[in-house]
Amino acid sequence: MKCRGYLRDSEGVSTAPIADPYAAACPTRTVLDRIGDRWTVLVLLLLAERTCRFTELQRRIEGVSPKVLTQVLRALERDGLVTREVHAEVPPRVEYSLTSLGGTLVQAVAGLDAWARAHIDEVERSRAAYDARA
Amino acid sequence: MKCRGYLRDSEGVSTAPIADPYAAACPTRTVLDRIGDRWTVLVLLLLAERTCRFTELQRRIEGVSPKVLTQVLRALERDGLVTREVHAEVPPRVEYSLTSLGGTLVQAVAGLDAWARAHIDEVERSRAAYDARA
Repeated sequence: MKCRGYLRDSEGVSTAPIADPYAAACPTRTVLDRIGDRWTVLVLLLLAERTCRFTELQRRIEGVSPKVLTQVLRALERDGLVTREVHAEVPPRVEYSLTSLGGTLVQAVAGLDAWARAHIDEVERSRAAYDARA
Repeated sequence: MKCRGYLRDSEGVSTAPIADPYAAACPTRTVLDRIGDRWTVLVLLLLAERTCRFTELQRRIEGVSPKVLTQVLRALERDGLVTREVHAEVPPRVEYSLTSLGGTLVQAVAGLDAWARAHIDEVERSRAAYDARA
């Protein structure tokens, strides 16, 4: 991680770089992109309920294509937020679960979901008024 | 808003549609896209500190282009999250502030920001391990 500053211990010796998404090179930016993604939010909240198969995720998230869902799950697996387990059956059963790291993110994304549900009417009224002015 | 179900009052009469981002047609999806966007998170958190001019936002968010910042601010204004005020000076001073609706979103996006800062090292280690396996 290469960011803007360094944390300092009690003797003023720098220890770890400070994560800072306002700095162009900070990798927290790529994490912000990932975790705020619409599909990521929806997948994480479903997996917070329970382990799911691919087909179940696809069925519950209306309109997501298999290709996009595959990309989202792969990125979540790469980031250490989700595990993919293949059970040797015929046909193979593939299940996705939250990791403990993924579990720490659920609360944050649940806040986005709750906000969107609670305030969609205000947002839509504002959009209509803005478009009428424009 | 046109979503999956309807809230029912105590007599079982349907009242308002239930916002549900798992439904393909629900407008909460477009809101989820907006609020989780990397630049949106960074702009909202700066405006939560204080009213800012365009140039200040641009300076503090390293690497954002004027074009993208303009688009982000316009979308936030359209959604009713930010107000744009033009002061009749030479040159005109343009300032952006959070609306009260925007203020309600700040806490949710602050959770994303905090998560990204706190867990970036774990995410980066996971990415490196995943890429080494692939």
